[in-house]
Amino acid sequence: MMLVNGRQQTHIAVADRGLHYGDGLFETIAVRDEMPQLWDRHWRRLSQGCRRIGIEGVNPEELRNESLEACADIEQGVLKLIITRGEGGRGYRPAAGHATRIVATYPWPEYPADNWRAGVAVRMCTTRWGRNPALAGMKHLNRLEQVLARREWDDPGIAEGLMLDDLGHVISGTMSNLFTVTDGRLQTPQLKECGVEGVMRGLILDIAREAALPWEETSLSAQGLREANEVFVCNAVIGLWPVRLIEQQAYAIGPVTRWLAERVSAAQRSVKHQEK
Amino acid sequence: MMLVNGRQQTHIAVADRGLHYGDGLFETIAVRDEMPQLWDRHWRRLSQGCRRIGIEGVNPEELRNESLEACADIEQGVLKLIITRGEGGRGYRPAAGHATRIVATYPWPEYPADNWRAGVAVRMCTTRWGRNPALAGMKHLNRLEQVLARREWDDPGIAEGLMLDDLGHVISGTMSNLFTVTDGRLQTPQLKECGVEGVMRGLILDIAREAALPWEETSLSAQGLREANEVFVCNAVIGLWPVRLIEQQAYAIGPVTRWLAERVSAAQRSVKHQEK
Repeated sequence: MMLVNGRQQTHIAVADRGLHYGDGLFETIAVRDEMPQLWDRHWRRLSQGCRRIGIEGVNPEELRNESLEACADIEQGVLKLIITRGEGGRGYRPAAGHATRIVATYPWPEYPADNWRAGVAVRMCTTRWGRNPALAGMKHLNRLEQVLARREWDDPGIAEGLMLDDLGHVISGTMSNLFTVTDGRLQTPQLKECGVEGVMRGLILDIAREAALPWEETSLSAQGLREANEVFVCNAVIGLWPVRLIEQQAYAIGPVTRWLAERVSAAQRSVKHQEK
Repeated sequence: MMLVNGRQQTHIAVADRGLHYGDGLFETIAVRDEMPQLWDRHWRRLSQGCRRIGIEGVNPEELRNESLEACADIEQGVLKLIITRGEGGRGYRPAAGHATRIVATYPWPEYPADNWRAGVAVRMCTTRWGRNPALAGMKHLNRLEQVLARREWDDPGIAEGLMLDDLGHVISGTMSNLFTVTDGRLQTPQLKECGVEGVMRGLILDIAREAALPWEETSLSAQGLREANEVFVCNAVIGLWPVRLIEQQAYAIGPVTRWLAERVSAAQRSVKHQEK
């Protein structure tokens, strides 16, 4: 199903600023048993993004109702929300206008079950993140860096590519956030200058916080990545995939990764039951 | 007029990657007496951009014919071309698909005549360019930085805002390229890491080259900008605007600026006559 401003349609105006400038934001949400998962976290990030770039007038109840309408009869799938600044303005300058609201559902992507069980092989991308604190963390519509990074490989045996920033810090995957475990300490790259603050990343940090697992947002070098005992990637759709191979280096699926994977699954189940 | 893949329509598919990721490019072209001006330069930049990000199958004659069709009866106006990677692919990963081709015309923007005669006042923006050589120079659809920079001011007396990169280099205006003249030497910021390589910037550099005017692409500091004798901004629609004021500092409209403004006008006239 696809709803544009509440109406079932598959087209938007060419004049929309989302197309012209990537002037908007999006969320990609797992759907299970007709329910968008981790809704509150997705809405929080989306509304914070709207505040940061100055898009007004998005009504959370309207968006939630349309999302539930779109998810009806979906046992397992993906819900994508797109909010743009709509039409209007002259050139780059925005006018006070009406945001465009897109609610669309997609089939569940069929990843191999081994991605969760045995872990995934990932590569290092040559396309890097540009740094800009004004845009960092947000899931905005300017995603050409990730598109170019994802174009770098075709091998279906490679599940994800890791991207550095121009300083050589390891930041994230093309579609996922990255965690390492080194000497029992959970670490994830800080995203103050680039990258997307994933909803699943936030959930995992909250799980660590509540369990008093030592964790930190840090600056991660390629060397630090090599020295990690455990590595995993995560996003709101896949949950958590252990990383078993980065280029030529193998990693074991360690106890912290296993424990967090179990907790993520449990959180997803409990969210489902609680919200139904 | 608005043509999408050759058909007159004002909507595109929500599924288009131009909307989802800004996965595409655009050109903004001056139209005079039914002719898109500096067509060859615009096409060259657009096709180079397509090659860089891997969009295939854009036919230059088709695009030119549709542009001429859209410009019929337009004495003075603006032609905008948008090329996206079209629909298809899974997430960030592009699939081999058909590019989307949008050809649209707009009214000529009514800028005050004094912008050309007396020069413009500009401001320094706080929003900066992120640096990424993989994207630098291209007129791609990821333009949120410029939107945020243009949102910084409302004063109609300020015609443009200048943007720095994160290292403090002066790069460009939000919608224009920047030139300075210091001790008779024409300088413009190099755009290897960020910014858009404007068509009018290219024309001005060619004019300087042919006239053996000393010029260079350089790294410009805020201090270098203050020490300049002449400053101007340019783009394909406005041509060339002398800058008379940057924040509190006044600049005279100098001889090099006047000479180049005259040459730009002449080039635009000759292009028109030659192509008709």
